[in-house]
Amino acid sequence: MTAFSNTRTVRIEWGDCDPAGIIFYPRYFEIFDASTTHLFEAALGITKFQMFKNLEFAGFPLVRTHARFLKPTRFGDDVSVESKITFGRSSFDVEHRLTLKGDVCADCSETRVWVVRDAGGTLKSHTVPETVLAKFRK
Amino acid sequence: MTAFSNTRTVRIEWGDCDPAGIIFYPRYFEIFDASTTHLFEAALGITKFQMFKNLEFAGFPLVRTHARFLKPTRFGDDVSVESKITFGRSSFDVEHRLTLKGDVCADCSETRVWVVRDAGGTLKSHTVPETVLAKFRK
Amino acid sequence: MTAFSNTRTVRIEWGDCDPAGIIFYPRYFEIFDASTTHLFEAALGITKFQMFKNLEFAGFPLVRTHARFLKPTRFGDDVSVESKITFGRSSFDVEHRLTLKGDVCADCSETRVWVVRDAGGTLKSHTVPETVLAKFRK
Amino acid sequence: MTAFSNTRTVRIEWGDCDPAGIIFYPRYFEIFDASTTHLFEAALGITKFQMFKNLEFAGFPLVRTHARFLKPTRFGDDVSVESKITFGRSSFDVEHRLTLKGDVCADCSETRVWVVRDAGGTLKSHTVPETVLAKFRK
Repeated sequence: MTAFSNTRTVRIEWGDCDPAGIIFYPRYFEIFDASTTHLFEAALGITKFQMFKNLEFAGFPLVRTHARFLKPTRFGDDVSVESKITFGRSSFDVEHRLTLKGDVCADCSETRVWVVRDAGGTLKSHTVPETVLAKFRK
Repeated sequence: MTAFSNTRTVRIEWGDCDPAGIIFYPRYFEIFDASTTHLFEAALGITKFQMFKNLEFAGFPLVRTHARFLKPTRFGDDVSVESKITFGRSSFDVEHRLTLKGDVCADCSETRVWVVRDAGGTLKSHTVPETVLAKFRK
Repeated sequence: MTAFSNTRTVRIEWGDCDPAGIIFYPRYFEIFDASTTHLFEAALGITKFQMFKNLEFAGFPLVRTHARFLKPTRFGDDVSVESKITFGRSSFDVEHRLTLKGDVCADCSETRVWVVRDAGGTLKSHTVPETVLAKFRK
Repeated sequence: MTAFSNTRTVRIEWGDCDPAGIIFYPRYFEIFDASTTHLFEAALGITKFQMFKNLEFAGFPLVRTHARFLKPTRFGDDVSVESKITFGRSSFDVEHRLTLKGDVCADCSETRVWVVRDAGGTLKSHTVPETVLAKFRK
């Protein structure tokens, strides 16, 4: 088991918000999805685009997610998203914690699988490559 | 406790899908959010816009959601979304089941609270009005 | 030159709207993009997914669009989108007209190119296949 | 007439891209909309949320936009968006230029109106306040 975390700041935009004036919650999942990508980029030093080119990798689709929305955020807010990853064999969990000025506004846990394409082009789960895990141990 | 369900068909569009060619999962939450709205419209006979005008109502923000993604869907798929609601006092749960040709592709449970605005304009939870509950019992 | 039109109804959803309570305009372009796809489906009798499988086709990326927003629409509105196509050689124009109860709320003209992938996988423009044009003449 | 410009960097994310692996063009309009907001924030020193609180202001809805898409961008690209504003009386134009490593990938011109709410709550166009224009002249 390996743990690693990354934190980034995200601006909540006008277009992320709904007629109640607060963030439309599917936008949180867009933020969390990008946060998982940024976490990999922080560990590996390459973008997700480069991961497709350089690694045995065809994506890390989500299989399960659970989220809680504790306090609303609104346009103009600069929120902080801390993401922590824990690896299994061919899957991994990420915990996201979204805060505004120190207050937790939302949290989310997700389980993803590492997939590759077989000879026929079909996606199938695959052990996370050791070269990837090694970068998260540093 | 009152249970009620509604089913609708949704086309997965090109713009809902990501470079893996399958739906980008935050789009599922857009679909589920709209499905909850359509369920209320099916029971009440009015749109969400009219709910704001005609009811003691300022929204039903999500406080918790859990979803599983079992099989991918892709652009051109016409999926079926069945949504079942169960009421508490000032909150309610909705279970969504998204199927393609009978296969469950995703399911989701959500908890929402019924809110109104107090004199100062602040959102606060409120008992679901009896006039609303009555419509779901029919 | 061949002209063909298709009309569909679209529900404006809560999540399509911004804190002003009206549609966030990038959502109109999602609607127009899907409307162009539905127009092809109406003419060809196959989905865009099947176009990739059955035709010399790798997409019809947009190269230019011009839109006007005349009257706002809001959640709960069922708008009508009429889309007319006119073919050039390797490009085509689509005019979209979005109305609510007969009033034009937005219109949009777009130019797209028909592309295929060359041997190296690169996208390049290509004459619209005669088999496709024939379907639009019927 | 007053001209002012602002430049910001935007990461194109996985979820912004479609099955062709390139950005889904409605996402560009989300980027341009936010770029106009950031331009005002750069000039006024306050967020759009604060503009609603502090100014005679109820939004700057888009009335017309024209965009060209010259070169595709893809996930992992950090694009630069330069936005230039020119004021009329109660409207203004913004020109956006989106580049990747110096190459123009998309450009867009938009016309927006400054609106306020009248006594009845209806949006109507209004002269851009002199206090706002003054900030853009600095």
